[in-house]
Amino acid sequence: MKIISKIFEFKTSGNCDIVDLTDITRRALSDTSLKDGQLTVFAPGATCAVTTMEYESGLIADTKEIFRRLAAERGPWRHDAASPTGNAPSHLRAALVGPSLSVPFSDGNLELGTWQSIVFIDFDNRPRSRKVILKFIGE
Amino acid sequence: MKIISKIFEFKTSGNCDIVDLTDITRRALSDTSLKDGQLTVFAPGATCAVTTMEYESGLIADTKEIFRRLAAERGPWRHDAASPTGNAPSHLRAALVGPSLSVPFSDGNLELGTWQSIVFIDFDNRPRSRKVILKFIGE
Amino acid sequence: MKIISKIFEFKTSGNCDIVDLTDITRRALSDTSLKDGQLTVFAPGATCAVTTMEYESGLIADTKEIFRRLAAERGPWRHDAASPTGNAPSHLRAALVGPSLSVPFSDGNLELGTWQSIVFIDFDNRPRSRKVILKFIGE
Repeated sequence: MKIISKIFEFKTSGNCDIVDLTDITRRALSDTSLKDGQLTVFAPGATCAVTTMEYESGLIADTKEIFRRLAAERGPWRHDAASPTGNAPSHLRAALVGPSLSVPFSDGNLELGTWQSIVFIDFDNRPRSRKVILKFIGE
Repeated sequence: MKIISKIFEFKTSGNCDIVDLTDITRRALSDTSLKDGQLTVFAPGATCAVTTMEYESGLIADTKEIFRRLAAERGPWRHDAASPTGNAPSHLRAALVGPSLSVPFSDGNLELGTWQSIVFIDFDNRPRSRKVILKFIGE
Repeated sequence: MKIISKIFEFKTSGNCDIVDLTDITRRALSDTSLKDGQLTVFAPGATCAVTTMEYESGLIADTKEIFRRLAAERGPWRHDAASPTGNAPSHLRAALVGPSLSVPFSDGNLELGTWQSIVFIDFDNRPRSRKVILKFIGE
């Protein structure tokens, strides 16, 4: 049994920018030579999150829309009184979706559904340099 | 330390059908003979999710209602313009809840709360054949 | 590779009381002497959840507000017809956020973002005695 870490860095445009991490994650798993185990995908940050979805342009637009509805851009929010960033909804959306995802793998393959992509969502209200941590545990 | 995988297959009626996986998961853990470790429950699919809840008929109805409110069945949604399935809200709800859950176990028992069941929610808008992947890491 | 469990017990005031677990978790990791691996934080209970957020007083207030909007305190809810506790929204919010979180660590440090705290949210509608389970897998 081994533990192997990979860090993937990338830029986002913020504002619910959704980045498909599936290919990079598949390649990282292949590089580990692990066959059977579990991957943790972790977003280090308080205004970003990871989940899975079908990475299709209509759904990407719908996802931005649903988060606008779930935590409206206009407040008033207390956090925005305390700081001038105006990104309280970014924080609320990130806490709701959560920063971690666990994906099993077998025979060297992530056990995702056919249309299921691993995505990073940047809820912050400006472009950011981001990273995700991939932690593979397996053999 | 060992890694042991189990796959559980079942049918759902879709439309926020909520399946209690607690008993099957307990039996699977017992079959592994592992005593101490961590279980990942993973839903492979873009319109289904896993979480925990009290599996009580009132709450089951309330859960269906809250998801109707959080992502209304009537759009218009962009995904439904792109595909004729009309299941954009199924996708949005699944991404919100997420496909993975990690549950610790000790002394061969899942460390769930008294009323806490592991559930699979099928958000798709039609009956489906589904599976979940149980990945046990422990000793 | 080792598995080490810690249980942390505490009291909450309920009603979306948000408890910062970051320091206690850092100390627990330090006590394990593990350097590289993955932590599962698990909330055993059907009316509580774990996630991450910036632990800032404005955001704490905003988080309480967003959950009031996402699952309103006034129903009618079916669960509340079945039981006199009146805490159906507590259950719905907990299922939405989820009871588990996976956090990677390297060089003996949790790989959290700068402003990212690990939090326990007690959605129940009364003060509670609670616990979280910390399960470290690593070397």
